[in-house]
Amino acid sequence: MSENRLIYLPLGGAGEIGMNCYVYGYGTPGKERLIVVDLGVTFPDMDTTPGVDLIFPDVSWLEERKDRIDGIFITHAHEDHVGAVGHLWGKLDAPVYARAFTAHHARRKMEEQGHNPDKVQVMGPWPEMRQIGDFNIGFLPVSHSIPESSAMVIETPDGRVIHTGDFKIDYDPGVGEAFDRDLWTEASKPGVKALVCDSTNVFSGHEGRSESSLAPEITRLVAEQPGMVVATTFASNVARVKTLAEAGIAAGRSVCLLGRAMRRMIEASVETGVLSDFPSTIPPEDAREVPRGNLMLIVTGSQGERRAASAQLARGKYMGLTMAEGDTFLFSSKTIPGNERGVISIMNQFSEQGVDVVDDDGGRYHVSGHANRPDILAMHELVRPQMVVPMHGEHRHLREHVKLAKDNGRAGVLAPNGTCVSLSGNKPEVVEYVETGRVYLDGAVQVGALDGIVRDRIRMALNGHVVVTLIIDEDDTPLGDPWVELVGLPETGRSGSSVAEIMEQDLGQFMQRADDRTLMDDDKLDEQLRRVARNTANDELGRKPEVTVVISRLS
Amino acid sequence: MSENRLIYLPLGGAGEIGMNCYVYGYGTPGKERLIVVDLGVTFPDMDTTPGVDLIFPDVSWLEERKDRIDGIFITHAHEDHVGAVGHLWGKLDAPVYARAFTAHHARRKMEEQGHNPDKVQVMGPWPEMRQIGDFNIGFLPVSHSIPESSAMVIETPDGRVIHTGDFKIDYDPGVGEAFDRDLWTEASKPGVKALVCDSTNVFSGHEGRSESSLAPEITRLVAEQPGMVVATTFASNVARVKTLAEAGIAAGRSVCLLGRAMRRMIEASVETGVLSDFPSTIPPEDAREVPRGNLMLIVTGSQGERRAASAQLARGKYMGLTMAEGDTFLFSSKTIPGNERGVISIMNQFSEQGVDVVDDDGGRYHVSGHANRPDILAMHELVRPQMVVPMHGEHRHLREHVKLAKDNGRAGVLAPNGTCVSLSGNKPEVVEYVETGRVYLDGAVQVGALDGIVRDRIRMALNGHVVVTLIIDEDDTPLGDPWVELVGLPETGRSGSSVAEIMEQDLGQFMQRADDRTLMDDDKLDEQLRRVARNTANDELGRKPEVTVVISRLS
Repeated sequence: MSENRLIYLPLGGAGEIGMNCYVYGYGTPGKERLIVVDLGVTFPDMDTTPGVDLIFPDVSWLEERKDRIDGIFITHAHEDHVGAVGHLWGKLDAPVYARAFTAHHARRKMEEQGHNPDKVQVMGPWPEMRQIGDFNIGFLPVSHSIPESSAMVIETPDGRVIHTGDFKIDYDPGVGEAFDRDLWTEASKPGVKALVCDSTNVFSGHEGRSESSLAPEITRLVAEQPGMVVATTFASNVARVKTLAEAGIAAGRSVCLLGRAMRRMIEASVETGVLSDFPSTIPPEDAREVPRGNLMLIVTGSQGERRAASAQLARGKYMGLTMAEGDTFLFSSKTIPGNERGVISIMNQFSEQGVDVVDDDGGRYHVSGHANRPDILAMHELVRPQMVVPMHGEHRHLREHVKLAKDNGRAGVLAPNGTCVSLSGNKPEVVEYVETGRVYLDGAVQVGALDGIVRDRIRMALNGHVVVTLIIDEDDTPLGDPWVELVGLPETGRSGSSVAEIMEQDLGQFMQRADDRTLMDDDKLDEQLRRVARNTANDELGRKPEVTVVISRLS
Repeated sequence: MSENRLIYLPLGGAGEIGMNCYVYGYGTPGKERLIVVDLGVTFPDMDTTPGVDLIFPDVSWLEERKDRIDGIFITHAHEDHVGAVGHLWGKLDAPVYARAFTAHHARRKMEEQGHNPDKVQVMGPWPEMRQIGDFNIGFLPVSHSIPESSAMVIETPDGRVIHTGDFKIDYDPGVGEAFDRDLWTEASKPGVKALVCDSTNVFSGHEGRSESSLAPEITRLVAEQPGMVVATTFASNVARVKTLAEAGIAAGRSVCLLGRAMRRMIEASVETGVLSDFPSTIPPEDAREVPRGNLMLIVTGSQGERRAASAQLARGKYMGLTMAEGDTFLFSSKTIPGNERGVISIMNQFSEQGVDVVDDDGGRYHVSGHANRPDILAMHELVRPQMVVPMHGEHRHLREHVKLAKDNGRAGVLAPNGTCVSLSGNKPEVVEYVETGRVYLDGAVQVGALDGIVRDRIRMALNGHVVVTLIIDEDDTPLGDPWVELVGLPETGRSGSSVAEIMEQDLGQFMQRADDRTLMDDDKLDEQLRRVARNTANDELGRKPEVTVVISRLS
């Protein structure tokens, strides 16, 4: 082992599913040259991040070492891998590399955030390699649920790393490259030091199914429906969208794509050449004129997203199209944990419209894009790495994946976000823990997850908000009593009287008793008024609200 | 058909799963004497009801007809059937009837809300009947996932109604009465006008499994684990708790129950005689002294509830007990839609502790308490009613259940909350739509779902809150400029300067320009200041916050 070392450091995606961001480094400890694999987002939820628009990995560690970053590599165009490129690029300022389809999306994201899209360079598939510092790097095609997904082959002086990215083993994926066993055998031939490997489906015990296995069932279903068929899936699953469209055509239906993301993905696929034979579609204006039994819509919103086409159809109308009794809505998708309420809600709205809803029905109309447990093991056995480093999974997935590796005689390491692992020796070795976290895109601004802003919003949501206002004149004498505004709180409480009035009385009484030292000290006054207001609220309403005290001193 | 009529009116539980409340009436239209079946709660969530403690059906319709209510019947002791008895009883003021185990819980709920528990009367199982006005009513035992669940047999001058309550067909439920086919045949013999029937699992195509089918798998699992085993299930599933405890004993483990609800349920079961042979348990103090391999905990919190024993163990400690590497945590439960994030979160915390988590694993360690589609159909065929009225389900479940009935040659009616159906004729007939809704228990106060209180909290959570304060003197002249407090919003925005300062400048400039008529008119001033503040926030932060304007006029 040389003085130099090869390190792996996940900043996002290891210990969670989302916001992937992995760092590799090679060089003298503390001075390694760095590359970044993926810059993704994760999505907010009302429970923990109300009002937040997007969540990014905190890349402060990288930003502080900006001058050592030689490149950013994007494995594929899913939002949790490419979504933060535009938002975080300014902090990293390094060339971005991707294959054509992925680069197409990365460039748009750069442009949207005011960066030069030419910072994104297109690379062809492995065996094309790019020498970047001490790394020699290539994009090894792999099957997943979006075109041109790739693993990274990272050749280093300390050996070869294969970073799978998201993958499944699919020999007939419909659109995009089939899993090429020979190519992978070839890429693994020189010996692989470490396989950094997708863990998402490690708890799924059965072998994964091919995307192409769905076509017969979907085709049959679409043909059998008397009314209009509306199907939703992940817009980026171009193969699925194609299968759905072909099923529509086979059933003698005109096909119409609804939702910006859906149209954008298909256009990108055609433009970059990954899709050449997509059936012809009609625009929404024309769809309105087609008899329902001859029409199929393919729409965005498989997760029940409020603004997507599916939710708008559920509420009534989208682009002049409505659903009606006798129509069928197909979820050719699975519901991501946390989205159940939204999905169930639109299912019930469709039910109220008399629409029959069909969901994935235990896998009949959807397959996962990730390798199941036996496929993960098959990957280990194909690549035969010296060590396995599980990534892309919650803690429980990573842990189970390490077990799987060890049970099969390979070294493995549990390395959640912030765990810096040296891959140089014969076994993975944790060399450091780095502080990691999340950054929120909040409207137009990026805020730290620990800034307390979102915490305050959650508190107002849970407890309501009381504003206490007090005017104090030049002589430190209160001008009248404090008064209050209640927001998000009931007007009357246990006593049946106005809570605001009772609170103002209590605050007034406190002011009568307050001594000069308190009256001169804003902090003290703030603290005491807050206490009184909270106590009144607790007596009357049984809860202690957030209180903001505004003291105006005339001068 | 006489001039009198028999009506059915769901006020809760039809069109949702939760807060069950069904009304039956008999008499001259508009003057029917009424009975109520079940008074349940539903649980809040952060997305739609942040800060709310419990949700009840709005029983205004009943309250306005209070003098016509002859009784309240509780089918079983699940919270969505009995949970609102204490909170709503004051509005209805009628005797409550239940079987012993259910009455035990109903009485506690009455006491907790300051009502006389003796208002709850115990009835024995059918064929015991109680004549109440024109109704003759009995509790017909049925299997479910809590002891002494019952259907209601409601004999009326227009025929017999059977209201199933929650049920499954289980001939070996472990604890409580097995499904008694003969008894049900007997109760159906006089001919049944309407079967008002549980719809929860109408989409589950396979026949339901018996509670007792779980014992071998659970026993094997518990015996095989080297470390401590901690299992969670719904506390009210007394049969399951017993199966788990017996598995512990069989494996030579001491068993300890953790969590108030768990202990309370077992105590109630023993007290009311539904459970006579529960294994002996040890208190937590003693459990601490038992070697891990000889210990089993049965704990509350199968839904990841933050304050339950499971979540506290996941965070570190509960009653002096902690989990450790090599221990096993079993979810002998299913995750109710909407609770996924909470459950997954504690799974990962356990993973971080080195604890192996086992979930229901596709039904190996959990069975549902509700009848699946074939069992629902079996119930139709057993009771052979003239008409089927689906209840206890979301809209999609009710709709599917009506289809199922019709496909099998029976009349059915889709009657979501508020649909008043006459059952007197040969077919169900919708006679009226009644306004229904939800009432929130918010701290100590009941508030209407449409009062806007929770809406304001959601808005503050999504948008943040700005408080604008302005003092105006006796001559309608502003005393200084308005100033602002931002809560739940970033301090600095696009320009990099303090948002509060920029907003105060903008508001100050507005005040300079404001004419006398505006200055004299609080409403106009409020509207204009709000507009200015929102525009500044939008420019700087890219979002429009909630704004509260406080104008203080000196006098």
